[in-house]
This record gives sequence, C-alpha cells and structure tokens, in this order.
Amino acid sequence: MAGTDKTRADDALAMAPAIILVEPQLGENIGMVARAMLNCGLQDLRLVRPRDGWPNPAASGAASGADAVLEAARLFATTAEAVADLARLYATTARPRDMTKPVFTPRGAALEMRSGKGRPGVVFGKESKGLHNDDVALADAVVTVPLNPAFSSLNLAQAVLLVGYEWRLAGDATPARQLVMPKETRPATKEEILGLFEHLERELDACGFLFPPEKRPAMARNLRNTLGRAELTEQEVRTFRGIVACLAKGRRG
Amino acid sequence: MAGTDKTRADDALAMAPAIILVEPQLGENIGMVARAMLNCGLQDLRLVRPRDGWPNPAASGAASGADAVLEAARLFATTAEAVADLARLYATTARPRDMTKPVFTPRGAALEMRSGKGRPGVVFGKESKGLHNDDVALADAVVTVPLNPAFSSLNLAQAVLLVGYEWRLAGDATPARQLVMPKETRPATKEEILGLFEHLERELDACGFLFPPEKRPAMARNLRNTLGRAELTEQEVRTFRGIVACLAKGRRG
Repeated sequence: MAGTDKTRADDALAMAPAIILVEPQLGENIGMVARAMLNCGLQDLRLVRPRDGWPNPAASGAASGADAVLEAARLFATTAEAVADLARLYATTARPRDMTKPVFTPRGAALEMRSGKGRPGVVFGKESKGLHNDDVALADAVVTVPLNPAFSSLNLAQAVLLVGYEWRLAGDATPARQLVMPKETRPATKEEILGLFEHLERELDACGFLFPPEKRPAMARNLRNTLGRAELTEQEVRTFRGIVACLAKGRRG
Repeated sequence: MAGTDKTRADDALAMAPAIILVEPQLGENIGMVARAMLNCGLQDLRLVRPRDGWPNPAASGAASGADAVLEAARLFATTAEAVADLARLYATTARPRDMTKPVFTPRGAALEMRSGKGRPGVVFGKESKGLHNDDVALADAVVTVPLNPAFSSLNLAQAVLLVGYEWRLAGDATPARQLVMPKETRPATKEEILGLFEHLERELDACGFLFPPEKRPAMARNLRNTLGRAELTEQEVRTFRGIVACLAKGRRG
C-alpha cells in the first residue's frame, strides 16, 4: 500500500505545473518563489535568462529551507526551450493584451490543470514589466488574478503562490470547517448534553430562576439553544455539570 | 446611482476583515503585508507591540505603493484592545493547539466572513513562533491553510495574502474562464464559420485532398471539429479565408 501511495504521489507530481520565470531580476524573489512553490508541493522551477546569472546566493537566503527546489532549478536561454516538453502553457499577466485568448482565474486554470490535458506550465514575467507579448502568444491561455483593480500588481512570489495554492486546493479535500479537539476528548452525545440541560434546569428551578411557570418552557428552550450552539465536548459537559453543582452548593451553603 | 454604488462599496469595506499582526518582527514584512492587503482591497491594519517600534521606515520600502495602509495602521498594547470592536475573530495557525475549536480553511472562513456574522478580524502571530495560545483562545475559530504538510510554514505576508485573496474572491464574480479579445473584433457567427469550412472544403476537393469519396464525410467532419475548437473570431475567419484563397491561387499559378 505504501508503494501504491508513492506511485500515486509520483503521478501527481509528474502532472504538477512547472513554474517558468522569464528574466527574473532579483535573486531574493527567486528564493521566495522556491519557498512558495514548496509550500504548495511544486518542485519544477525553470529559469529563463535570470538577470544576475545562476546560481545566485541571494536566492538561497530567501528560500527559507526550500533549497532543494533551487538546486533542482534548470536554466534555459529561451522561453520556447524552457516549455518544450509541456503540453499546456499558461501566461500570467494583469494587463490585457491585444490578442484573442482564453483568460482564466487561478482557480479556473487549476481545475483545467487537474483535468488531464497533459503536463502544464505557468510562465511569469520579470518583476518590473511582466511578460513579453511573444511569451504570452506562446501560451495556450492567460491567467489573471482578480484583485483590487486599483492596486493589482503582485510581488512575483505572491503571484506564484496564488497559482500554486489554487493548484494544491483543487486536489485537496480539507473540510471548509471542522471542529478540532484534543485527542483525549470527543463530541458530547445528545444524552450527555440533555443530562447537562436537565441538571441545570433542576438547579434553576430550585433557586427560582425559571419563573414564572408560564415562561419556563421558553426560557429553558432558549437556554438549551444557546448552550447547544457551543458544540460541547464530553469533557466540557462534565466541567459544566461541575460548575452548576459548585454554584448551587455555594448558594445553599 | 453613483451614490448607491459608493454606499455599497463603503458597506463592503466596513465588513472587510481587519488584519491584526501580533508582535511582528521585521518592518519589511509589515510593508509586504500592507501591499498584500491592498492587493485584496483590505485597508484596516492593526499592530500589537511591533518589535522595532512604529512607524518603521523599513515597512514603507517594502509596501511598494501601499503606503496609505501603513499610514492608517493603528498601534495597540494588547491583542484584546486591538480586537475590541470586532464581532468575529479568526486566529491563523499551522500547528494544532490543545483546545477544541472550529478550524476553517481560508476559503471556509471567507464564506463565513461574507455571511454577515458582524465585522471580522484575523490575527497573525510573529514570524518566528506564530501566535501565543492566549491569542488563539481569544479567537472564535482557527484558520489553517491546507498546504504541503512537509513544508507548511508561510511567510507572514503570504499568509495575509491567502486570507485576503479568499475574502476578495468570495465576493468576486470573475468567470473562471472567458475568451478575451480585442475590442475591434467579436466571436464569429456560425454562418461565418460554416462559410470558412465550405470554402476550405471546396478548395480541398479541387486539389484532391478530400479523397477517396467514401472517406470524404469523416475527413471533412474531423477538419470542422478541429478548427471549431479554436473559437475563431470574425477577423480570424476572414484571415483564414484569405489564407485558403492564397494557397489555392499559388497551387493554380
């Protein structure tokens, strides 16, 4: 089974997008791109004519531990060579170009990348100017992040992160919301919750809080509803019963 | 109508999440947070005990134009004071804590923030250690980004970006895919496309390409299917008809 899992992971990686940086200027940005890539599980970094040559010591400092991505990075003289083995190419650009092309959000592109059109790649232009029109023309589609139109210029590593993040999430099954609790406890059962409610209501009857009698049903219902929203654990039910008992004892004492 | 739009935009901003940085260490990171916030349309930045004091000139250099967010940032002595006016608080943390709490993905949290539970805020811990347990306990829920478990530590500004990005996208209607084209053209009509197909097939009949006759229907169908996938514009149909005519003329000449 471990073997099968490994094969599946290898297959997934083989279909993960390559990240191609065309003429990146700052080594720090290349390092931050490597970090963002590894955050998302991407490992195939390709560099086309980086301004300050390659390797670049400034990259490693900014990679914060993603050195393996930098060490495996490949250097190319042209964008065409860098993307030669890929089947589907996306160009990231915030500015509209004078060509007819499909424009995807990162989410839309991620869904397409996951749909088996062959090995994808995403090209990113230099920090100051973005991609050449020739590189955009080389791509099958454009990816544009729908951001604040008044301030849409993303840092290079931030752009890579958003593309990688959407790719990762398109294959991720983490629930949008889950109640996480320490291992030693569990959600309380309805019986335990009802036990707490009845205990509390007995003591509230005894101290005269649930008064007058005609209002008692609504008061008890509202109380149950309020406490019910807390999604109590078994441990918390026991703690609350202890609190009720302690307060009641104090009152009687 | 402009007034209504402005009111709506103001309402949206009033319900946009505040970003609270607790004990941020590097001014550069505060600047990059401001940039990421403004990329997503967020403007309410709150700082709790920044290590190097405030204002910090290093922040402005890294903000790449998002200075308005930095200038409007407010300084607080405690997290409790920084979040006092908020109705719903999320704590970002990658590590599980020993408490029972709802854990959201950024996407799940964004949907909840947009669902009108009152003004939300998101707290982020210091770069080196993340949030104190006391700050996590103060929050209603945890936000954890589902990233590569083997390399999940995000740069502070990257974490803010992902939360802001999901908040923005939860209110964004950009189609996942759209065919964008220059203003002076439009998608070709079916009549124009069929005109091109018939023109091409006439010339291919004339030069003997669609042969033998029993294979002609399938060959023509495949050709139409292939060209049909290109989603041709009116201008492109005219160009292709010109190409067909030119090639045919060359052959005849």
